Amino acid sequence: MARDDEVVLLDFWTSPYALRVRIALAEKGVAYQHKEENLWDKSPLLLNSNPVHKKIPVLIHNGKPVAESLIILQYIDEVWSDRCPLLPKDPQQRANVRFWADFFEKKIDASGSMTWRVKGEAQVAAKNEFIAQLKLLEEELAENPFFGGETFGYMDIVFISFASWFYSYEKSANFSIEEECPRLMAWKKRCMERESVLKHLPEPEKIYEYMCSIKNKWKME
Amino acid sequence: MARDDEVVLLDFWTSPYALRVRIALAEKGVAYQHKEENLWDKSPLLLNSNPVHKKIPVLIHNGKPVAESLIILQYIDEVWSDRCPLLPKDPQQRANVRFWADFFEKKIDASGSMTWRVKGEAQVAAKNEFIAQLKLLEEELAENPFFGGETFGYMDIVFISFASWFYSYEKSANFSIEEECPRLMAWKKRCMERESVLKHLPEPEKIYEYMCSIKNKWKME
Repeated sequence: MARDDEVVLLDFWTSPYALRVRIALAEKGVAYQHKEENLWDKSPLLLNSNPVHKKIPVLIHNGKPVAESLIILQYIDEVWSDRCPLLPKDPQQRANVRFWADFFEKKIDASGSMTWRVKGEAQVAAKNEFIAQLKLLEEELAENPFFGGETFGYMDIVFISFASWFYSYEKSANFSIEEECPRLMAWKKRCMERESVLKHLPEPEKIYEYMCSIKNKWKME
Repeated sequence: MARDDEVVLLDFWTSPYALRVRIALAEKGVAYQHKEENLWDKSPLLLNSNPVHKKIPVLIHNGKPVAESLIILQYIDEVWSDRCPLLPKDPQQRANVRFWADFFEKKIDASGSMTWRVKGEAQVAAKNEFIAQLKLLEEELAENPFFGGETFGYMDIVFISFASWFYSYEKSANFSIEEECPRLMAWKKRCMERESVLKHLPEPEKIYEYMCSIKNKWKME
């Protein structure tokens, strides 16, 4: 990284997508300016930096914005390629972690958020789907310490960024991830031992309070 | 590529996702065995190669499967990196083409298919959304010959693979992409001059017939 690199992260504290970027930057040891957004009154900087989606996170590197968390992670890995690789080198392994990150985005993210957004039968269905998907991830993890194999990497960041939300999912839909997927919970504990994760993950109880405030705001209960 | 490389593509002739892989392999000059799947009676090879999504395309390279078209394109670019780069080298430019490919997957793909899957007001809304999204792409293309700038690349492949479906969208929802986005149509013609594209794109009329047969099968009319 050149000395005059300027890195800015447009962020929001409960966002697991933004958290991915915080963890990746910490893993790479990249210093950055953190700008907390008000999602109900977005800044001109956010609207100009991500005019298509108008969403955080946005990483602004030397004045040039990069949006969408998975794309930002790959960007970070490519720019600061001299340290702590996030993606493996081997194309087959790269495709594999990209596959599971994509699976997370398309499937788990949706079913997880439905565990608290809906009630009754739909909630039970969402919970069952969420657990079934977690079990696929547990199978993929197998006996490895991390999704990246021996080292913490891309897919670990993609997934662990949602860990603070697990408590809200469990409390909303009345289940225990620990009981359903003990190996995933052991993986989570290993991730939590990393400073990059521990330092940036919000407290689960605070996420739960936030979730309750959102449900109240949207008159979901 | 080693001489003993074995490349197999699990394919279906109307699929724009599979077409992406065909075009990329043609651009790279990679020989492969083509296996047409019956999507109503999927082969054990497909089910075993992509047990999570059970979808084509799957690229099987020396016995190891890679699924999801965007991931396959990146895999192809990484394995056969000595010729015809699909993604640019610069991280900022790579992030940019990944952004638009992701936008295509999340937005345009959905609104495009809704132009023929629904009727009435929902169809008009889908058409308007589709056109608005195409205009964003046209803006991104600007005065460049290709989305990759001077050269045909990743985002060109992602988008052009849907060109055979345009006729079905237009005929279903009664509009003209040529009238709405003339620069995109000029881009389409430039892409069609490439052998990799021309040789593999299905005829629009055949896609329309296929679409009608699907609507009939699903009793959509």
